[in-house]
Parts: sequence; C-alpha cells; structure tokens
Amino acid sequence: MSILVVGTVAFDSIETPFGSAERILGGSASYFALAASFFTRVRIVGVIGQDFPQEYLDLFSQRPIDLEGVKKEPGETFHWRGKYHEDINVRDTLELHLNVLSGFVPQLPELYRDAEYVFLGNIDPLMQLEVLNQIRRMRLVVCDTMDHWIRESLEDLRKVLKRIEILVINDSEARLLSGYNNIVRAARAILKMGPKVVLVKRGEYGVLQFSDSTIFATPAYPLEEVFDPTGAGDSFAGGFLGQLARSSDQSQQGIRRAIVYGSVVASFTVEDFGVKRLAGVSLAEIEERYKSFAQLTDFQT
Amino acid sequence: MSILVVGTVAFDSIETPFGSAERILGGSASYFALAASFFTRVRIVGVIGQDFPQEYLDLFSQRPIDLEGVKKEPGETFHWRGKYHEDINVRDTLELHLNVLSGFVPQLPELYRDAEYVFLGNIDPLMQLEVLNQIRRMRLVVCDTMDHWIRESLEDLRKVLKRIEILVINDSEARLLSGYNNIVRAARAILKMGPKVVLVKRGEYGVLQFSDSTIFATPAYPLEEVFDPTGAGDSFAGGFLGQLARSSDQSQQGIRRAIVYGSVVASFTVEDFGVKRLAGVSLAEIEERYKSFAQLTDFQT
Repeated sequence: MSILVVGTVAFDSIETPFGSAERILGGSASYFALAASFFTRVRIVGVIGQDFPQEYLDLFSQRPIDLEGVKKEPGETFHWRGKYHEDINVRDTLELHLNVLSGFVPQLPELYRDAEYVFLGNIDPLMQLEVLNQIRRMRLVVCDTMDHWIRESLEDLRKVLKRIEILVINDSEARLLSGYNNIVRAARAILKMGPKVVLVKRGEYGVLQFSDSTIFATPAYPLEEVFDPTGAGDSFAGGFLGQLARSSDQSQQGIRRAIVYGSVVASFTVEDFGVKRLAGVSLAEIEERYKSFAQLTDFQT
Repeated sequence: MSILVVGTVAFDSIETPFGSAERILGGSASYFALAASFFTRVRIVGVIGQDFPQEYLDLFSQRPIDLEGVKKEPGETFHWRGKYHEDINVRDTLELHLNVLSGFVPQLPELYRDAEYVFLGNIDPLMQLEVLNQIRRMRLVVCDTMDHWIRESLEDLRKVLKRIEILVINDSEARLLSGYNNIVRAARAILKMGPKVVLVKRGEYGVLQFSDSTIFATPAYPLEEVFDPTGAGDSFAGGFLGQLARSSDQSQQGIRRAIVYGSVVASFTVEDFGVKRLAGVSLAEIEERYKSFAQLTDFQT
C-alpha cells in the first residue's frame, strides 16, 4: 500500500536560538516522505532545480521512497529562510524564493496514477487540484494548507476541500479559514466545507480530531529540547498517513492511533536541525516512544 | 476528610466578548470551595467586608462548606475588575481594590488546625506561610501562586515551596519562576525548589503533571462555548484536590484521575459567568463528563 505525496522539495536556511543551518534539505514533501517511509512506500511528486545535491536524493533512495515523480528543471531549487524566536513557537520568514516551483505543473508518472493514499502537501490549491485530476482511483486523500492560500486562493482551496477526506490544519489557520475564534466551532464549520475529518495541529499542545460524531484530543509528547520545529507538521502528517496505510484501519480508533504515531514521529523531527533526527531514527525507536506516549497519557488503568 | 482552603473571597466585575457582570461572587477560595464541595467538606479561611451580601454566604452554606474561618471586617470586600479580549485567553486587569484584604492575617479556628488537605490559594506567600504555621498536622498541601508574587515576593514564595507537596501553576508563571522557556525544563527546575509534584495549567490546552519519575499529559475538555474563563484555575484545583480527598488515592494513577476531575469541573465553570454554572452543576453531570473525557482521549481500546 503506497502513498502519493505532492509538495515542496526545498532548501531551508534556518536560525533558531540554538544554532543555524544553511541550505539543508527541507520542504513539505521531504519531511512527509521521510516520516511516512517508516510505515510504507512513498511516491513523491515535486520539482527541484539543477543545484539540488545528489546526497539529498540518496537520502530518499535509501528508503522506500520513489523519486520518479520528482522533476529536475533548469534553475534553482525552492529556498526558504526562516528565523525562530526565543519562544520557539514563533518564527519569521526572512526569504522565500520560489525558483523552479513557480509555474510548476505536477505531472504524475503513469504508475503513480493508481494511488490509494494521497497527501496534498502545502502548495498552491491549483496544483493540488491538478494532482487529484490525474489520479484514477484513490481511497483516502489528506490535505494540508496554510494562511497564504486561505487568504489568496480561497476559491480554489474550497474546491480542494470538497474532494478530500481529511484536512490537516493548524489552529490559527483553522480560525482564519472558518472565521471562528473558538476552535471547536472553527472545526465544525470546516467539516461543513467538505472533509469528513479535520485534524487541528496545536504544536507543543497536541492535536484535536473532529468528525461529525466524535472528538479526539491528545497532547503532544513533552520534550525537554526542541531544537528546530521546522517540518513538525509534515512529519506529523507522514507518520499519521503512514500508519493508516500500514494498518489499513480507518476506524475511529485506528485514526486515533495514527494521530498518536504522527505526534511521535513529529516529536523526533524537532529534536535536531532539519531532517537530521528524523532521517536517523529507527522504527523501533518510534514504536518505543509510541508506548511511552500511551503511558504518559493514560489515567484509566 | 475535609479540605482547608485559604484564599480570596471577592467581588468580580467582568467583561467578556459575550456580555458583562458587576460585583458577582469571585475569588480563589470561592471557586475552589464550590468546586471541591462536590467531593468532600471544605473549610474556608478568608476575609470579607461589610458589603458582602448574605445570598453569597448562603450559596456556600447550602453546601458542605464551613465559613467559620471567614472573617467579616469593617470596610469593603476585595474587588477585581477585568476584561477579556476577543481571544478569550487574554485578559486585562482594569481595577484591583484590596480593601479588607490588605493587612489581613489569617486566623484559623481551633477546629481547622487539624487539616489533612490544605489548599493555599493565590494570595501573599506570607499569608500562606502563616496558615501553614497554624496547622498542627497535614497530609497534603497544594499551593497556587501568580506572576505578581514571583516578581515581588520570591523569597517568601521559596519558603512556601519548601513546605508543600503539590504546586499548581500556569505555564507562563512556570517560565517566570524557573527562568526556562521550555516547559519540561521549567517544571524540572521547580521540582528542585521543593514540591514533589508540579501541575502546569495550560488553559484550553490542558495540564501537564511532573514528578521526579513521571510525566502525565492531558488535553482540556474541548468546549464550543467559553463564556468566562474566570475561576477556571481555582475550579481545577478544587476538583483535583476534592477528588484526591474523596478517593484517598495518592498513587500516580490516583493523581492522574484527580487531574482529569479537576479539568472536568473547570470545563463547567467557564460555560457561564462567574460561579453560575459551577454552582448549578450536579455531581452526576461531573461524573458523566468525566466518562466522556475518558472516551475522547482514549486511543488504546
């Protein structure tokens, strides 16, 4: 059971209170694919420039990650530069160079068009729609977005929302998209826009899951060291959808367990710069932390 | 098994985006006592002015709440006026009149001096120490404080911390007291100051519990309507210590369950202005919401 992901493959230049890193591997598709690859095969659709180093491609190829859908175009790779504050939950975007991403039209390789699980990473909703149009059959589509698209491309985003099962969104974006401050109301309003399930990411405070009939609330794994929050949301989505694909269990409890797996994978990502910790962790460590997550939230036994 | 609480009995004047209320019953001891009285007998130590209405006293007397330790002094009752923002998690204090509270020295009635459970509400650490000095024997002391005392009375507060078992504190205060931004580090540093257990309140994001050997993380009960957050923290403490006293179970799991009871009681408090909802709820409703809380956080069954 493989997952198709469309999103950015990028260079990130990051400054946090604990140090900085230049032009390291980043992008929503990169974090998602690495995170999901612990659980199942992943196929990336994206674009890179001529400057994209082979060693980053090798990092994917060493895992069950297919790169046939990653186009290399003339020009430079998408590059984001950001700085985190003393309060690590706050960040500023200092530079954003779309480069080869501007004008990119996703083209799915023939093999990719029978995708059972799909993750539409945080890119232009038009590109997300383009991917959906090229897929012949799909079982479950999970989608991410951000404030920029809610503000600038709401009409296209609404079309996407009608065609997906699960929306992953952070709390401030949920407020912006719905117009409600209260997060329960915000999520209920978003459910009316199309998705069957809304997952509200709250960073260090955990995740809320909403469907028509249920709510699930879970804290995040408490960490003594958060080095770099970049990619936490996409790692969450990757662990989440990876576990769903691995288990083929889309029951309410199956979705809940997948949310916890997503939180666990994200908790590793933020322990070091970029993908460093995520790429170095083992499935055994993930399973171990899943167990300790279960212990640290249990009050019923 | 009764609980002794020292704290404020006050008038609150509150404005929220949903309405306003003038000189309604407020204060840390009031919320705590009402919340804990669902579970066990409560004895209040505090001070009120000549203007304090009989109906508010009756509200306490109708429950297992003893008022022998509430002194009526010449002058006016402590009065707080606050305004909540559109984002209900943010509030400004507009007025603060200590009135009879200034210069108040707690005097425990003889009967109160054998207190097994003690809650030191958010008042001057000197008053908290005075209460501890008058108690002959105690089994468990829980303490609350606030940024004002951390800034202005740190030396006295440190003396208090050495003599208590459990500190209840919100996340920004934990950062201020410890000097650490990361909340896990902050809590570990506070554990070194004396308490065996630190409960970090994070408002709508739930509670973290730290001891030397364990962490417990729980979300808050998700609410579609938060009318007035005033008293949520003291209601949490009341439900928490009330359940601990009712169950006599101070095991790790017993403490965890008490934290969930505290969260449940607080979730009722914020559903209406002041103590209105808290005073009107039934133990059956609390038990019912405890069960649905267990369901909405469970991913293991």
